[in-house]
Amino acid sequence: MKTTLIKEILVSEPDGRTVTIYGWVRTKRETKNLVFVQINDGSCFASIQATFDRDNGLPAEIENELKKITTGASVQITGKLVPSPASGQAVEVNASEVTVLGEAPAETYPLQKKNHSLEFLREIAHLRPRTNTFGAVARMRSQMAFAIHSFYQERGFNYVHTPIITASDCEGAGEMFQVTTLDLERIARDGAAAIAKGDTGVDFSKDFFGKPANLTVSGQLEAETYAMALSRVYTFGPTFRAENSNTTRHLAEFWMVEPEVAFHDLHANMDLAEDFVKYLMKWALEKCAEDMKFFDERIQPGLIKTLTEVANADFARVTYTDAMVELEKNAAAFEFKPFWGCDLQSEHERYLTEKVYKRPVMLYNYPKDIKAFYMKLNEDGKTVRAVDVLVPGLGELIGGSEREENLEKLEKRITDMGLKIEDYWWYLDLRRFGSVPHAGFGLGFERLLLYITGMGNIRDVIPYPRAPKLADF
Amino acid sequence: MKTTLIKEILVSEPDGRTVTIYGWVRTKRETKNLVFVQINDGSCFASIQATFDRDNGLPAEIENELKKITTGASVQITGKLVPSPASGQAVEVNASEVTVLGEAPAETYPLQKKNHSLEFLREIAHLRPRTNTFGAVARMRSQMAFAIHSFYQERGFNYVHTPIITASDCEGAGEMFQVTTLDLERIARDGAAAIAKGDTGVDFSKDFFGKPANLTVSGQLEAETYAMALSRVYTFGPTFRAENSNTTRHLAEFWMVEPEVAFHDLHANMDLAEDFVKYLMKWALEKCAEDMKFFDERIQPGLIKTLTEVANADFARVTYTDAMVELEKNAAAFEFKPFWGCDLQSEHERYLTEKVYKRPVMLYNYPKDIKAFYMKLNEDGKTVRAVDVLVPGLGELIGGSEREENLEKLEKRITDMGLKIEDYWWYLDLRRFGSVPHAGFGLGFERLLLYITGMGNIRDVIPYPRAPKLADF
Repeated sequence: MKTTLIKEILVSEPDGRTVTIYGWVRTKRETKNLVFVQINDGSCFASIQATFDRDNGLPAEIENELKKITTGASVQITGKLVPSPASGQAVEVNASEVTVLGEAPAETYPLQKKNHSLEFLREIAHLRPRTNTFGAVARMRSQMAFAIHSFYQERGFNYVHTPIITASDCEGAGEMFQVTTLDLERIARDGAAAIAKGDTGVDFSKDFFGKPANLTVSGQLEAETYAMALSRVYTFGPTFRAENSNTTRHLAEFWMVEPEVAFHDLHANMDLAEDFVKYLMKWALEKCAEDMKFFDERIQPGLIKTLTEVANADFARVTYTDAMVELEKNAAAFEFKPFWGCDLQSEHERYLTEKVYKRPVMLYNYPKDIKAFYMKLNEDGKTVRAVDVLVPGLGELIGGSEREENLEKLEKRITDMGLKIEDYWWYLDLRRFGSVPHAGFGLGFERLLLYITGMGNIRDVIPYPRAPKLADF
Repeated sequence: MKTTLIKEILVSEPDGRTVTIYGWVRTKRETKNLVFVQINDGSCFASIQATFDRDNGLPAEIENELKKITTGASVQITGKLVPSPASGQAVEVNASEVTVLGEAPAETYPLQKKNHSLEFLREIAHLRPRTNTFGAVARMRSQMAFAIHSFYQERGFNYVHTPIITASDCEGAGEMFQVTTLDLERIARDGAAAIAKGDTGVDFSKDFFGKPANLTVSGQLEAETYAMALSRVYTFGPTFRAENSNTTRHLAEFWMVEPEVAFHDLHANMDLAEDFVKYLMKWALEKCAEDMKFFDERIQPGLIKTLTEVANADFARVTYTDAMVELEKNAAAFEFKPFWGCDLQSEHERYLTEKVYKRPVMLYNYPKDIKAFYMKLNEDGKTVRAVDVLVPGLGELIGGSEREENLEKLEKRITDMGLKIEDYWWYLDLRRFGSVPHAGFGLGFERLLLYITGMGNIRDVIPYPRAPKLADF
């Protein structure tokens, strides 16, 4: 069974040769003498039309199959590929054979022709990729993932799989998922007796890893270990936050891209981030034109213009301190009053990109107190070499920094932040042995997809979203 | 700070132009008037040589820096790119400037010139990519990951991120890691009181997902939902088994590739698997020639010959029943006596590929009782349309099947195997609505890497291996 994808057939010469198409029926429509069936196989946005001509009567077996055809049925149709008289399609199939492979009874199949709400479709996440919107999202997700790999592979980066489960305490900031093979009901049953004997009631030495283990919140620290050997690396994998946020912007499980580069400072990091964002925008616009047209027309009008502008912009490079001057000028307009030392809110980020600089902004040199311990301290002693990339219409898309490569300074930062030096023994080794200036950043893949597709809810750009009380499928 | 990778400099014309190299010192060697420093940046296997000429005396600042240079130190060296008189290298750098960016004190740096055991290197997994072996493994891992994406993207497949955390009970077979945000010590403390009140002591309604959740053991079932919409999809992500196996072949966390194709039967599945394996072998041999030469010379002599044979072979396609005839002829040679209905052991698999067919073997139509519920039942009622791809020197590399697409038959298999129909509601929906013949397979990425690199222990082909009592870094 060798199949040809509908996307290939749609761009073929309509030279009358015989083709067989496989897919799912989107619509069936009948006139007096003609039956039109639209078939989609998900290989592209467009469906192909198969036409059955009753002018000279159709064989009974074809009429029998046509009766079974409803929206969602799977079919195999053979016929001649001919020019289509209909507008909006170059070719169609003048059908001579049809087999219904699997029916989709109209009375039970949830995806009828009518428009469904995104909320409803989330409940049938196993069927939603069969709709126009989620088919397009799925193709964009695949395309953008490959764009990411292509960008880094073309530039001599090595892809590193950093660990998902980790017993390392490095990552600090709580909100982690615990991974265990302990029997919780047994702990409940026997715990009190153990505690009575002076134990904690939870014997982690019997757990799979012999100690508490968690799901990673970032691959950065491990990626740094590989950058210190291979010079240019990137991660692209799932990360986890057990944050109890039921919003359109948070997921408990999401994918992150984290390049890390040796012999690289903050400004080189900004060059890389700008190149990366533009490359992604161009990939979306050029390689996904058909799906982008749909998003632009039906999901977020103006989307293509926005992405095109980003692709062609010179990103502004502005220090946090300079940006704060601009924000304070406009303090009255903000719900959250900006002041030097505050973390920027989405309203501030969007004001900078949309009103002040009117293009993407790379904001750098943030106050050290609102940033992570590993960011390189500037000579002013107050700011660190962090950079966030802000884009119009969204706000922060990327966050990164040059890393502190000096052993003593890094140890001091760890201690000052109340963390334990001994938890960082291997991370500090990178500064003990052949330390080099290095930098990197992280891009949340679903945030990128929200931006590129114009979808409004992050749960709609990942196949099976995970959030509080949500882990079905 | 714009750097040029050493792999680019090594293939440049030695035309005397000035270059700056960045990397880590592998060795320093001195003759009367010359100092030779080998620098590696991990971009390729080879190091580049920088030569300092003392014939006319060197400035004091250069001599000072040279004193600090030891194995593992990071350096920035500028000089003229000239032809190298030394054998085995086309170019070298006639150095005029050197800066030691980070020292690596000989008395503490663990990676001195001597050969270290793989066991020792596993304990310093954060430094081992700086060695020849693990640098090569890391580059191969990155290359093969990109080869996988390229193979599927070229063929119109869409990459799908199936969920890592799942509360779905579909996956059956135990040995899963539980994911929780419940406070285990609190369960130990309060559990007994809850049980006294008739509770289980573990209130999953308070857990993050509101019910027990696990780490995925396979993305297949979710991948099928996307294949039923996009026709051709693949997953490539981490999967987990809480198997208490301390062997050279098991990991608790490993990466899997799982293509799934609609309108595809068992034989088309075999075509795809054969193409895939050959593509990967060719990619390794052609695009990773330098690293492959190292593995062939130092890790497993004959490796390149083996992989070349696989790349050029016509894979044998043999039914399980026919293979069993061959195995039974030779029963005396096996530790585990083969019989129709048994699961094949590695010794059987290797006998088939190495002695009987002398090439890769795709073994299909396995007894249904040793295979999973979702595999399509053959008309004999005894076998299912499973296929395993066996390769010489390793055994099973791929396992797959055509899936049961008939609703009633699939329900019967689920019930017969003691599983609960209601747990599979969404998976069964795929057979209720527009069901189609479809097939797919899984390839363990680390098994592939073991095969391609010739490394002997699976813990050495993943950056940070996870196994019982092992979750450091």
